[in-house]
Amino acid sequence: MPTSDNFALIDLDRRDLGEGEVRIANSWLSVDPYMRGRMNDVKSYTPPFEIGKPMDGGAIGTVVESRSDRFKEGDTVQHFAGWRDEAVLPADQVQPLPELDVDPQAYLGQLGMPGMTAYFGLLEVAGAKEGDTVFVSAAAGAVGSTVVQIAKAKGLRVIGSAGGAEKCAWVESLGADAVIDYKSGTPVVKALGEVARNGIDVYFDNVGGEHLDAALAHANLHARFAVCGMIDVYNSSKPTELRYLARLIGNRIRIQGFIVSDFKDRSADFYRDMGGWLKDGKLKRNETVFEGLETMPAAFLGLFSGGNMGKMLVRL
Amino acid sequence: MPTSDNFALIDLDRRDLGEGEVRIANSWLSVDPYMRGRMNDVKSYTPPFEIGKPMDGGAIGTVVESRSDRFKEGDTVQHFAGWRDEAVLPADQVQPLPELDVDPQAYLGQLGMPGMTAYFGLLEVAGAKEGDTVFVSAAAGAVGSTVVQIAKAKGLRVIGSAGGAEKCAWVESLGADAVIDYKSGTPVVKALGEVARNGIDVYFDNVGGEHLDAALAHANLHARFAVCGMIDVYNSSKPTELRYLARLIGNRIRIQGFIVSDFKDRSADFYRDMGGWLKDGKLKRNETVFEGLETMPAAFLGLFSGGNMGKMLVRL
Repeated sequence: MPTSDNFALIDLDRRDLGEGEVRIANSWLSVDPYMRGRMNDVKSYTPPFEIGKPMDGGAIGTVVESRSDRFKEGDTVQHFAGWRDEAVLPADQVQPLPELDVDPQAYLGQLGMPGMTAYFGLLEVAGAKEGDTVFVSAAAGAVGSTVVQIAKAKGLRVIGSAGGAEKCAWVESLGADAVIDYKSGTPVVKALGEVARNGIDVYFDNVGGEHLDAALAHANLHARFAVCGMIDVYNSSKPTELRYLARLIGNRIRIQGFIVSDFKDRSADFYRDMGGWLKDGKLKRNETVFEGLETMPAAFLGLFSGGNMGKMLVRL
Repeated sequence: MPTSDNFALIDLDRRDLGEGEVRIANSWLSVDPYMRGRMNDVKSYTPPFEIGKPMDGGAIGTVVESRSDRFKEGDTVQHFAGWRDEAVLPADQVQPLPELDVDPQAYLGQLGMPGMTAYFGLLEVAGAKEGDTVFVSAAAGAVGSTVVQIAKAKGLRVIGSAGGAEKCAWVESLGADAVIDYKSGTPVVKALGEVARNGIDVYFDNVGGEHLDAALAHANLHARFAVCGMIDVYNSSKPTELRYLARLIGNRIRIQGFIVSDFKDRSADFYRDMGGWLKDGKLKRNETVFEGLETMPAAFLGLFSGGNMGKMLVRL
């Protein structure tokens, strides 16, 4: 588990814009569980952070100076040079916000990368379809809470897992048919069995570990698991212990890992459907907001201790 | 782990044939790892064996009496009423042997259920294709040895794992590009890393446990795992420990459980391809043969201690 001592807040010299560049004053910064993986020095789908170099990540900000004809002062934009209060970027690394009737910071959460993870993971990777019972872990998180709502918008039965009464109540308010409190002391495998009497057809895994094993224990024939995160193991050197893994044979279970960027060519599908559900009032959000750049490490570390309900954000 | 005390050899009264029935003198009986699952009192893809009732399984025999016009005395047939020296069955539960130039007992192994498991698991479930490196565990077993040979017939690179020098030498003689001896004392994850410098694209899992974890550790982007058996865990109450499970996210690994009977409508594809490879001399077999009905429990239990090279059979 990283600590705040692993981070430093450094002043860098301000530099003038080159031709085609823009200066952005960041207003919202994202912290996401996948960033933990980038702190390990291993080859992965994104290169590791480098010690002594700035970290990056999703950000929303306002253009305060422009030498590009694509953006003018005052434009609200999104980009990937987070973990700083000001960014100087070539205009082609900056995107305008999609035109949905929603707060700008939503594009770091439900209407951005975490929301796309929920949408494509549930509907494409797991192939959730009419009649399915969906189980989703970390259901009060940015991804999980969106999985719950997309599944309900599609008319599916949904069981969510979250830690603590407050989070569980929120997940229930999103429409979940049943909610498990994994901090209640009841093993997840038992709690899931009590609410999934007819088993589960889809498991959306943000967590790994005990939740994954419980999903294996209760998976129906031809169940599909979409795995986009294993927050339980990111900071652990212990192996995952699975007692029910062999059920995948008799039940022909499919477990599929995925990364949302595999679907980046299909963002139009996402914005079309999410825009519709937003208009119909079918999407609710929650945000856990830290204030000030110096709180980035605390916000980030809070992800691993269940400190967020909905999307974890830092406002500058 | 079951013991021979769990079995009893019982004399049953001989009964006369009813209309449409045949009497078969069995000559070859099959023991297979999946039978272990049927000894547990749990709902699965095949019903559990019942205590005090005869066990069944694949068998080859000769018709010695017939009241059906589908079979006559002297016909060699296959059926599923194994674990006995004589079977009385309705003719529709008895099949003639396919017409390939091969010993009849091959239809219990490479040209039967285990061979179909290898064929459909490798080519359909894992979707092995040109350029792939295939890793297969229990590569000296009935299924694994056929996976090795089909993969080579398809021009793929194959790494097999087997226990002990004799089995490894045999797997190598089948054409495997590299063989790991999992009994050598080197952890499988290390041994696999040494021979799979460019990783693996397909893992054919007969074993689970340490082999599955090693496959996860070395799986390439978009690797596909076909899982038809986990012989390591059938007799264990310990959980499977996986240290490399989270790699399935970044590498978009797919793990798919399957049962060969899902492909029973496609047996013509299997016999066409296997017949061709047989004619071209691309298929070799090995059989570990016990003699006499009373050896069925010993043959069966031998499957779990690595007692067989190739297909485990009992000859009557």
